[in-house]
Amino acid sequence: MLKFTSNYIKQTENNKETIIQNAFDTLKEERDSKKIGYYDLPTDSLSHIERIEKMNFDNIKQVVIMGIGGSSLGIKAIESILQPYSKNTKEMLFLENSDPITLLETIGKIDKENAIFFIISKSGSTIETTSTLKTLIKYLDIDLDGEDSKKLFAITDNNSVLSNFAKHHGLNEFNIPDNVGGRFSVLSAVGIIPLTVAGYDTKAILKGAGNFIESFFNNKENHILEKACYLYNNSSTKPISVLFSYADRLENLTKWFVQLWGESLGKIDIEGNRVGLTPIGLTGAVDQHSFLQLIIEGPKDKIITFITIEDFERDLNVPNITLKGIEKTDFINGTSFNTLINAQADATKQSIIESGIDTDTISIDKITAENIGALLAYYEVLTSLVGAMLNVDTYNQPGVELGKVILYKNLGE
Amino acid sequence: MLKFTSNYIKQTENNKETIIQNAFDTLKEERDSKKIGYYDLPTDSLSHIERIEKMNFDNIKQVVIMGIGGSSLGIKAIESILQPYSKNTKEMLFLENSDPITLLETIGKIDKENAIFFIISKSGSTIETTSTLKTLIKYLDIDLDGEDSKKLFAITDNNSVLSNFAKHHGLNEFNIPDNVGGRFSVLSAVGIIPLTVAGYDTKAILKGAGNFIESFFNNKENHILEKACYLYNNSSTKPISVLFSYADRLENLTKWFVQLWGESLGKIDIEGNRVGLTPIGLTGAVDQHSFLQLIIEGPKDKIITFITIEDFERDLNVPNITLKGIEKTDFINGTSFNTLINAQADATKQSIIESGIDTDTISIDKITAENIGALLAYYEVLTSLVGAMLNVDTYNQPGVELGKVILYKNLGE
Repeated sequence: MLKFTSNYIKQTENNKETIIQNAFDTLKEERDSKKIGYYDLPTDSLSHIERIEKMNFDNIKQVVIMGIGGSSLGIKAIESILQPYSKNTKEMLFLENSDPITLLETIGKIDKENAIFFIISKSGSTIETTSTLKTLIKYLDIDLDGEDSKKLFAITDNNSVLSNFAKHHGLNEFNIPDNVGGRFSVLSAVGIIPLTVAGYDTKAILKGAGNFIESFFNNKENHILEKACYLYNNSSTKPISVLFSYADRLENLTKWFVQLWGESLGKIDIEGNRVGLTPIGLTGAVDQHSFLQLIIEGPKDKIITFITIEDFERDLNVPNITLKGIEKTDFINGTSFNTLINAQADATKQSIIESGIDTDTISIDKITAENIGALLAYYEVLTSLVGAMLNVDTYNQPGVELGKVILYKNLGE
Repeated sequence: MLKFTSNYIKQTENNKETIIQNAFDTLKEERDSKKIGYYDLPTDSLSHIERIEKMNFDNIKQVVIMGIGGSSLGIKAIESILQPYSKNTKEMLFLENSDPITLLETIGKIDKENAIFFIISKSGSTIETTSTLKTLIKYLDIDLDGEDSKKLFAITDNNSVLSNFAKHHGLNEFNIPDNVGGRFSVLSAVGIIPLTVAGYDTKAILKGAGNFIESFFNNKENHILEKACYLYNNSSTKPISVLFSYADRLENLTKWFVQLWGESLGKIDIEGNRVGLTPIGLTGAVDQHSFLQLIIEGPKDKIITFITIEDFERDLNVPNITLKGIEKTDFINGTSFNTLINAQADATKQSIIESGIDTDTISIDKITAENIGALLAYYEVLTSLVGAMLNVDTYNQPGVELGKVILYKNLGE
């Protein structure tokens, strides 16, 4: 279960009702017209799971992902947070960047005989991913036309160049619906296939996401409409959206959020204005010792969202030990770390509120696949709502094309 | 060697000469009066290395750090980037957060017989660190008054409560100078002692830092004065400072930068105004697939600094393999990944410049301990300069105290 609360400082509520209704209608239209497909993934992706469940991965120990951006961030987000709570999961290795040091390190960890490989690219020609694939073919001596091809899975758009490649060599292929963009694709084959193979409860993830989306369209999640409107109405004075997660293993989820938020909303709007909200991911309590000072005393240009986990279900108490000379910390003795980290979140939030800064909180009762699915759906819907209010095309990314053109030109294509 | 270049859009240069001269004089005064001590660490910390070199750590395989914020970020930054380039280094484990999941995981990795333990806290009573220490004492059955005490090192302020604890049990103790704040302490005992024990070339780190600081005070690093002034003069319209590092292993250095920048500059200035520059760390090429769209088309409120590594000294070429159907990526064949990642940095930078956004670049010829020392010193001096220009107390952090008071109260001290 996810609980949503907010401590927003009341400000102008320009046309709040109209803004909310229009955005809600926009999302409804996106879904009903099938223009945007992520709303339907919780049911549509079930067929992928059925297909993959018929295959045998018993001898597989490693799941190797070649993908970057939307083709890796969501998978990493889910794996990181669910891994301690999931039994018999396989190791996942990620080949993302074109950094030679980490590329060599990760290749060195691959045990080809016990590994399965996923090449994930929506367009099919992502330069990091195809270069990595070529490197693996050479360094692991992968025979594309022999037995090895059974261990290669392509996840890509129908009829993409990667799809053509997969068909040519008879690889297993799974497609991403045309109406699902890369950063909204975590619940498509992109995330669901490798995570199912790695042993995660993807049906429960989809169930949690599906329930949230259904509940939203049934007008039962009004808090998200209120929040989107608040972020939108204050977007020029509070353009920085901070996600402060109180759990180390949520760090990859905040990275997934940064892509979703930054790339969806950072746009030239319909009237030619540069708009967008700048996402920042923090981890508590660590970043209380870093970024917090800036929030409390710096410019009031931030809205802070906390994510806390009520019950980590693994815990240990601060032992009843007195350290000679440091008796002043004895007040914490006997308290559990679970209690401590949540008390730190509460105290930090309270201090931020007292400084006159807006906060809201997503409280997760337990780390379950269903809850994580709901959390992902929550952020996708929130992004779509704010995008609709900002009057931008939430689902494209024209700004990154110029860099690609320059790269191709500079490297002498 | 570090090379500094910039592509700033010329704007108002209000009193540039005066601003620069005043800030330079402030730093000189800070150093000469010994009010601020980090400028002298490159020579002062040498005695720590001499002392530690007389001890024998041959049988030690793990270096366990208990510390958070300024007591861990700098160590992690240096370890991450230098590890692939350093021989015979020991494994480093970090116990930072009060998260029960990662705490249990890390404790499970400790091999007590072959480990050495550093308790690092400037004040000596950091709640995460003392709680972690108590937990290790219990779970690893550490006998504070027996042989085990030889494997415990305290790094803290002279006469702090942790110092009293260390003296009581006869632990090895190293002190942080009173005039060196936590986030400026990476080159004090905080970073230098554990990194020396772990096998890193800390003398070279200090040499690189010392040379940069000397060169700065000898008026040979004017680029940093220009940059500080530019950031300051544009701080109200471009309040977001993005550090875009093109190497996976620089991610921890960007986290160190985030603390240094955010906590030093996010302040109420001498006139009562909330000021500060919001730091954001990105990793290239990964974040080209995430945050870049927002930079290019979103609000023009960011100044982007690139860090690139000219020669990674480990490399592999994209093999000369044609993927059937994906021939369009063959232009990259035979190119090294080292060349590719730097070409991506260049292309991204060019696309950002063409969008009318300020950039500057720190180009590192090779990853050496000396270069990393210089880079750390560069950022410390830059922070001090901008802090002086903003008229804030760069070295305190009053904003985080309220949260601590509330925490102590809520947990019933």
